[in-house]
Amino acid sequence: MLRLIILSALTSSLCWSQQSDHFVPASTNVWGAEYPRVNSEGSVQIRLKAPDAKQVRLNFWSGPKMDMTKEPDGVWTVTTTPLVPGFHYYTLSIDGAEVSDPNSQAFFGGGKYASGVEIPEPGSTYYSATDVPHGQVRELWYNSKITGSWRHALVYLPSGYDSSPSKRYPVLYLQHGGGEDETGWIRQGHANFILDNLIANGSSRPMILVMAYGYARRLGQSAPDLAGKPFGSPEAMRAMQEIASAFEDDMTQALIPCIDSTFRTIADRDHRAMAGLSMGGMQTFQVTLDHLDLFSYIGGFSGAGGLTLTERKLDPRTDYNGVFAEPAKFAGKVHLLWVGVGTREPERMRSGLERLHTALDDAHIKHVFYESPGTDHEWQTWRRDLKDFAPRLF
Amino acid sequence: MLRLIILSALTSSLCWSQQSDHFVPASTNVWGAEYPRVNSEGSVQIRLKAPDAKQVRLNFWSGPKMDMTKEPDGVWTVTTTPLVPGFHYYTLSIDGAEVSDPNSQAFFGGGKYASGVEIPEPGSTYYSATDVPHGQVRELWYNSKITGSWRHALVYLPSGYDSSPSKRYPVLYLQHGGGEDETGWIRQGHANFILDNLIANGSSRPMILVMAYGYARRLGQSAPDLAGKPFGSPEAMRAMQEIASAFEDDMTQALIPCIDSTFRTIADRDHRAMAGLSMGGMQTFQVTLDHLDLFSYIGGFSGAGGLTLTERKLDPRTDYNGVFAEPAKFAGKVHLLWVGVGTREPERMRSGLERLHTALDDAHIKHVFYESPGTDHEWQTWRRDLKDFAPRLF
Repeated sequence: MLRLIILSALTSSLCWSQQSDHFVPASTNVWGAEYPRVNSEGSVQIRLKAPDAKQVRLNFWSGPKMDMTKEPDGVWTVTTTPLVPGFHYYTLSIDGAEVSDPNSQAFFGGGKYASGVEIPEPGSTYYSATDVPHGQVRELWYNSKITGSWRHALVYLPSGYDSSPSKRYPVLYLQHGGGEDETGWIRQGHANFILDNLIANGSSRPMILVMAYGYARRLGQSAPDLAGKPFGSPEAMRAMQEIASAFEDDMTQALIPCIDSTFRTIADRDHRAMAGLSMGGMQTFQVTLDHLDLFSYIGGFSGAGGLTLTERKLDPRTDYNGVFAEPAKFAGKVHLLWVGVGTREPERMRSGLERLHTALDDAHIKHVFYESPGTDHEWQTWRRDLKDFAPRLF
Repeated sequence: MLRLIILSALTSSLCWSQQSDHFVPASTNVWGAEYPRVNSEGSVQIRLKAPDAKQVRLNFWSGPKMDMTKEPDGVWTVTTTPLVPGFHYYTLSIDGAEVSDPNSQAFFGGGKYASGVEIPEPGSTYYSATDVPHGQVRELWYNSKITGSWRHALVYLPSGYDSSPSKRYPVLYLQHGGGEDETGWIRQGHANFILDNLIANGSSRPMILVMAYGYARRLGQSAPDLAGKPFGSPEAMRAMQEIASAFEDDMTQALIPCIDSTFRTIADRDHRAMAGLSMGGMQTFQVTLDHLDLFSYIGGFSGAGGLTLTERKLDPRTDYNGVFAEPAKFAGKVHLLWVGVGTREPERMRSGLERLHTALDDAHIKHVFYESPGTDHEWQTWRRDLKDFAPRLF
């Protein structure tokens, strides 16, 4: 074991050089791993040692799904068609077992630690670590009376937070998507680098980001027995609502007070925003529209309340507690309502967001509707969303 | 895909209840995963869906290696013999492919993201999140002139750091092992909780922990071509020394100045300690004994300089720059020299550390030698090491 540890230290520290035309190791690899490799067209090469496997398949969740080919040395390989720039989740299926690639860093998505590959976007540096002042990301543990447990959140503090000890900052609460967790906006999204760059070039006001864990179960509430209860069944929907309601109470009664007492925030509704992606967008609509005493900036990134998942048209008088019934009153209270979607997202998501956009127009509710060109229900969409959304805040 | 995402949000949020005698889901599982499960004896049950696999094996790196059994539904299962308490790395071999378990959180070890299972230690709360004031862990990015790259470190700040803005703190630099990274001491080791608890009960002085990324390559230095060069070969040893030397310069010339200018440290040798596990212990001996102008507290956790890996006896006059040649001078400079090893570590590691301990005694060098009862080259040893080491500092 000792030898293994030292050897693995060595192999993870050194790069067994192996050149090939134009393909370079992905930035999402573990240190020293030559594969996955990416070329300038966005094609990806992947390798996996599985000498006794009968079938190995590559599964990009929003991209190609391909059989891999076994070479004589027991290594399976594949080269994909070009992928669009951005971060792409993938897994490997080895004789029917869906697992992650040992050569990739692990990213929490789909309810598990999955693999990912970053395809560079030519000319884009807005989500990279550039030579500007960097904020810090902090891990915060807070004891929630709602869930009766210690909960974990990540908090981005802008550069200068420590050196200006009397300065106070506005706060953007930024939620991950379904199947992801509080680490997604930093590790997949690079939200810290996006804010570093926006603040450095004067586009955004310095702000605090809070990224909370988006699942919650009330203290004493047992896990529902959903065996045999399909998705969409009344039992499953009720269970989801219970989670959403517990999260709303955790956020408003435990997390926000903890953030406001721990950090130098400007603790009023004019300086508090919330946005989220996919499931996090739904949570954002629920939490903010239930609590306009707490929030005045609202962002739905590829997700904006359960209504976007149904065919029913928004009824401004009754939906969302009737907040959209009086446009002038709404505009007086909400400084920004922002909704975005990628043009290549699944039809159901795209049309749901577009319907909401049209309905808000019809109801004379001022809002921003942003479309990310050429991107799917993926992180590149949400990075662009944050880049457009954050400069409009505070 | 959208449906998948929502469904996965649901399944990761809810617990499909499935009771079995005495076995409970491990704390290291992804949320909602029923397996791995652990019973009070420390036996572990693991399940993996791999309907078309011919052979699936479970590989605890410091524990049982067992064939799993296929059930009619394509799920492979296994129940292990009891494991000792603590955190244990494992992987699964699916038809020869060594991969991680989708039900486990991912922990960086062995140069990749591996699976892990936590076996509770009855009565132990010193490494748990307890109801005491909690420090915060920060992610720090620093631009290193040595490596010519942005590097990532984790920094633990004790509770009260923000509320006492004029207070300054001593610093312990705490390094991971070979194949691990800067996240290991928090995620596997729970160093933050260990310090929270030690500080809360008055055993340790409040201190800052800095956990750096232990691999480095100098700017412009290309990766050595080690194809066909075995571990222990002159080329491989030279490559390791180059990494160690680059890390030493990065730590002393880039990281420490960055920490001292970013945080409210007491920036002198009397208030700076370094410790590390395994490879990190070797780095600790190299860095501190080369820089006694910077450090006065030294901890080697299952690793204490390359000498512990050889049969050769310490020569106090020449080894480690001759720092052990004059015991009185050494004692006047070094406030604590601490060496630890688990009683169940591999013979080579144990005898190496014991030889060092004896040689230090023979050379009249005052030091602490700690043996962790019943534990292997694993995190339970290093948690105990930190619990014994930290209270002796500052």
